[in-house]
Amino acid sequence: MRSVAIIGIGQTPIDEQWDRSLRQIAAQAAIATLKDAGRESAEGLFVGNMMSGSINHQNNLGPLVADWAGFKGTGAVKVEAACASGAAAFRSGLMAVASGELESALVVGVEKMTDMTGHDVTAGLATAADADYEVDMGVSFVGLNALVMRRYMHEYGWKHADFAPFAINAHDNALHNPFARLHQKITADDFEKATMIATPINLLDASPIGDGAAAIYIVPVDSLHGKPRILVTGSASATDTIAIHDRPDALFLTAAFKSAQEVYQQAGIGPSDIDVFELHDAFTIMSVLSLEACGFSEKGQGPRLGLDGKIGPTGQVPITTRGGLKARGHPVGATGIYQLVEVVQQLRGEAEVTQVPEARIGMAQNIGGSGATIITHIIKIDK
Amino acid sequence: MRSVAIIGIGQTPIDEQWDRSLRQIAAQAAIATLKDAGRESAEGLFVGNMMSGSINHQNNLGPLVADWAGFKGTGAVKVEAACASGAAAFRSGLMAVASGELESALVVGVEKMTDMTGHDVTAGLATAADADYEVDMGVSFVGLNALVMRRYMHEYGWKHADFAPFAINAHDNALHNPFARLHQKITADDFEKATMIATPINLLDASPIGDGAAAIYIVPVDSLHGKPRILVTGSASATDTIAIHDRPDALFLTAAFKSAQEVYQQAGIGPSDIDVFELHDAFTIMSVLSLEACGFSEKGQGPRLGLDGKIGPTGQVPITTRGGLKARGHPVGATGIYQLVEVVQQLRGEAEVTQVPEARIGMAQNIGGSGATIITHIIKIDK
Repeated sequence: MRSVAIIGIGQTPIDEQWDRSLRQIAAQAAIATLKDAGRESAEGLFVGNMMSGSINHQNNLGPLVADWAGFKGTGAVKVEAACASGAAAFRSGLMAVASGELESALVVGVEKMTDMTGHDVTAGLATAADADYEVDMGVSFVGLNALVMRRYMHEYGWKHADFAPFAINAHDNALHNPFARLHQKITADDFEKATMIATPINLLDASPIGDGAAAIYIVPVDSLHGKPRILVTGSASATDTIAIHDRPDALFLTAAFKSAQEVYQQAGIGPSDIDVFELHDAFTIMSVLSLEACGFSEKGQGPRLGLDGKIGPTGQVPITTRGGLKARGHPVGATGIYQLVEVVQQLRGEAEVTQVPEARIGMAQNIGGSGATIITHIIKIDK
Repeated sequence: MRSVAIIGIGQTPIDEQWDRSLRQIAAQAAIATLKDAGRESAEGLFVGNMMSGSINHQNNLGPLVADWAGFKGTGAVKVEAACASGAAAFRSGLMAVASGELESALVVGVEKMTDMTGHDVTAGLATAADADYEVDMGVSFVGLNALVMRRYMHEYGWKHADFAPFAINAHDNALHNPFARLHQKITADDFEKATMIATPINLLDASPIGDGAAAIYIVPVDSLHGKPRILVTGSASATDTIAIHDRPDALFLTAAFKSAQEVYQQAGIGPSDIDVFELHDAFTIMSVLSLEACGFSEKGQGPRLGLDGKIGPTGQVPITTRGGLKARGHPVGATGIYQLVEVVQQLRGEAEVTQVPEARIGMAQNIGGSGATIITHIIKIDK
């Protein structure tokens, strides 16, 4: 298997982009990435997207994006793993280049969510859960996460306010990211007073949806001359039961644990070697569960990392350094690519105000469903 | 890149399976395939599916199928390329094994289409076309194909009756396939008198949808001892504009030409070496256009192959040997896997009444949209 390097990144702002279509924002990210990579085209195109079939009445995104972005004729495909579609598409592109089948690949994550009513989006997001045994009972996706958070608070004795640092950190970091959905500083008081959505999850526990696209260009490492190079040193995907009620422990992300262990082994490192960790903070409880499953905290003690001030850009475990899902925004099928793009920004030293000092190794973890699909990547700069 | 072999196949009958859910039919095909391969599990699962997000309110099919089929924890993902989703998933699995990332992969194609009204299915199928510039004008998927067929008849002077042999051959072959949707012999007279759908496409030009799942198990060739072995000797994917009106020639499948040329080159062969060709006969016109683009006929002369009796199991270019989309049925995201399964049956000599004598090399071509995504594979038996 050939080693693979990232030579280009690009993204659109995440917003309500009512004046632009799905293909337009996908192509905008693709073209920005080609420019960053100094390339004119790629041998293959991989599109990560979750809901285009229902929200945009458009499947077949491979040729749609290939055609619009000027890649006419190029082999192109869409990869879906609910909110982990971005990382799943990246992993597919990675395999195609690593296998020797392609000499270059462009991976685009895109989601256009704001052309529909909130009801349609909520129904669309629920397709990430078990349609027959969870959603048919009337539970929404935020409702499922609320059940998990409530159980976690009960089991380990945490208060809702103890989750505030995750939201505050994300909002602080997004202030300096021009691509972020929200540029709004929040306080612990704001966090506690926010509108309740599904007890105990309120508006400031939850990430906002949006329209956005991000892209990455990859090539075999041996095609590059000179340094620095950004290398993909770990890639793993694992699954858990799709329904939360089928798990022996609803408070442990088994698939996060498995995929993290696998990438640590591939990269020959452990959690303490990770300089920046872009995790999947769709809800504050998910930050906590990811940190615990990936070995950054004891089980049940995740909130401690936030309360002790360890999650900021200069902390021990810098997370959501460009705003995370919480404040950068969560255009679901694009999110996994935004995470990888942001890790690359950190490794390149391009993260400006929220730059993690001397960041050399970064990890990105993308979650589809309530922990059902978890894909983890480790990226390293070789100077 | 490692060479890859197919060691197991499985399928469900294609029908209106109202007593079974999407996950149940997917697992049925998966388990049949494991049994055929003599394996208990696989390192990775790839699911080809087009419309689960809208028709079944279910995305995230990777963990859904992994969990239900007994693969809990296995990395799993869904790949979508409209009606070419099956072949696209196969190609993703192929890259993962060829790269060395996985030592085995199970690829499942599944579609559950009959739980919805015909209107919803028609709307779902239209997502394969250009939502903004074709479907918004009110054209359906069969309508687009009807425009192409009408233009073809006008341009080259063929009558509707000249397309009959493609439907008759498919129905004849399906009579002997227990998994086929239709077991009904038809005549040229039936063909001409069938109910019109979108002029000139009538009911016997068009393939029936259905519920179905098929699966394939792949491993690296070097993990096998002894012969015969079924080898994947060519895999290529190409795209065209998603909208037909953007093409300089609406009657030539450029992406079929490109992907076929690429697999011929990979396998070191030409069209005359192909013993069996499972093509994407969603409509009779598509059989004609595929045969022409893949080099089996001069442009504009495809119907001649049918009229001259060359497309039957003992003919010069045996196609749709187990019924094709026309009579085996077209559960869209599963179709590409059914095609590959049927080629394997031919190479193994398991095709019974419709066995192609001494079949050694087979080709399968899966099409997504009106020729927008075309994926071609060549499979060979090494005795």
